[in-house]
Amino acid sequence: MEVESHRKRRDILPQYRAIVQYDGTAFQGFQRQRRDVPTIQRALEEALEVLAGHPIRVTGAGRTDTGVHALGQVISFTIDWPDERGSEVLLRALNANLPADIAVSDIAEVEPGFHPRFDARRRTYEYRIFNGETRQPLLRDRAWHVTAPLNLERMKEGAALLPGVRDFATFGRAPVGQNTVREVFAAEWQARHEGFAELLVFRVAANAFLFRMVRSIVGALKLVGEGSWSVDQFSAALDARDRKQSASPAPAHGLYLVSVDYE
Amino acid sequence: MEVESHRKRRDILPQYRAIVQYDGTAFQGFQRQRRDVPTIQRALEEALEVLAGHPIRVTGAGRTDTGVHALGQVISFTIDWPDERGSEVLLRALNANLPADIAVSDIAEVEPGFHPRFDARRRTYEYRIFNGETRQPLLRDRAWHVTAPLNLERMKEGAALLPGVRDFATFGRAPVGQNTVREVFAAEWQARHEGFAELLVFRVAANAFLFRMVRSIVGALKLVGEGSWSVDQFSAALDARDRKQSASPAPAHGLYLVSVDYE
Repeated sequence: MEVESHRKRRDILPQYRAIVQYDGTAFQGFQRQRRDVPTIQRALEEALEVLAGHPIRVTGAGRTDTGVHALGQVISFTIDWPDERGSEVLLRALNANLPADIAVSDIAEVEPGFHPRFDARRRTYEYRIFNGETRQPLLRDRAWHVTAPLNLERMKEGAALLPGVRDFATFGRAPVGQNTVREVFAAEWQARHEGFAELLVFRVAANAFLFRMVRSIVGALKLVGEGSWSVDQFSAALDARDRKQSASPAPAHGLYLVSVDYE
Repeated sequence: MEVESHRKRRDILPQYRAIVQYDGTAFQGFQRQRRDVPTIQRALEEALEVLAGHPIRVTGAGRTDTGVHALGQVISFTIDWPDERGSEVLLRALNANLPADIAVSDIAEVEPGFHPRFDARRRTYEYRIFNGETRQPLLRDRAWHVTAPLNLERMKEGAALLPGVRDFATFGRAPVGQNTVREVFAAEWQARHEGFAELLVFRVAANAFLFRMVRSIVGALKLVGEGSWSVDQFSAALDARDRKQSASPAPAHGLYLVSVDYE
């Protein structure tokens, strides 16, 4: 209703929220950088500029790193899109102007002032490991290839320690002005057959994540799985709240931003 | 035992059989062409040449087209590989010299004279369709994106007509000197969730396939699924044994050579 009245008054441009999927392989992350660096944000802004005839700024829910994929990134932007054309036409026009490795799957008008990052209440990520001797060409940019045999039960034990409100300083850096406390709602490993191979999939949901947090946790749980760390060592590292106690982060290409939820 | 005696006599070089997986996106099919054309066979032969120090000829079970993938292509080659190094070391050395989009997952010594194409008794292919409105970036080179809603039940009815010994002239061309009769052992559609999306997967096994046969059948069954053809029309096209009664072949990037079986 409020949206309607704004649209009628036209005192501010209508604001949209969209779901974005991408194969992050060819991009240097989500966030716009220098002019000549390919990023998801830049590709989205360029496609919108074609439609609008002038530059449009996109904001995103998560600043995914180079090589990280998304099934449900959330973005927002304002555009002077005629009511009578509808958001379905905007969706198709936007997809027609995006490269093959980015697609928008849903567009809806939202309240002016909606911010995809600040208003988000829950983010869900998945991390995929292919655990086998020989690399799988069809999974090379989609899952981390780990050759050492992993003990899934021990990795599950480690993951079970994560939920709750905690200081995750060991496993990530906070943005300037924030502390390192986050609430993890759920964290679990599953063995899942996905067409080409049996994968180990880590699914984790939190109110928000620190920089590199999922990849650092997966890097540590991989050490637990291969037996280099005990579950107790993982627990001690978590309790230490010390970045130096972390393991090497798992590579970016196994990570997927699955969804972002709002109130 | 016979293999052993051949190895001891060393009157002929040991012959190996290997399973090969690849992402076909960057290759112009399996078969070697002009010098500057990237093909799977060429990449395999180049890797083997590095190991052997001289050119080695590779034969393959299936001449997959440009963009077609493989989970279980079978190749064979001879190489003077010292007994004491073993085929495990050969496997690792070969993988170390192959590009990231090709991998060998198994190598074993075979009887001299083994031919991966002539000796094959059963080939299994899969074809993946993503049926949805918005394209999926992570599946762009892995599945055919069909936007028109497909009726899976009708496609299953059509597929059920395929098994048996038949003249498949409608759906493919035979190599020179061969007729167009083939025996299809099994053909079925499944809805399968594969991580990123719900896919329609066509799995078909036959003693051998004609050129473009799987893609032509899938192209026709897609018409059945969207309602452009009735199941009866598909049946009539199959009975016509006439290439002109075929539908447009489905695109190559949805096709996978899954396995090749021998006696």
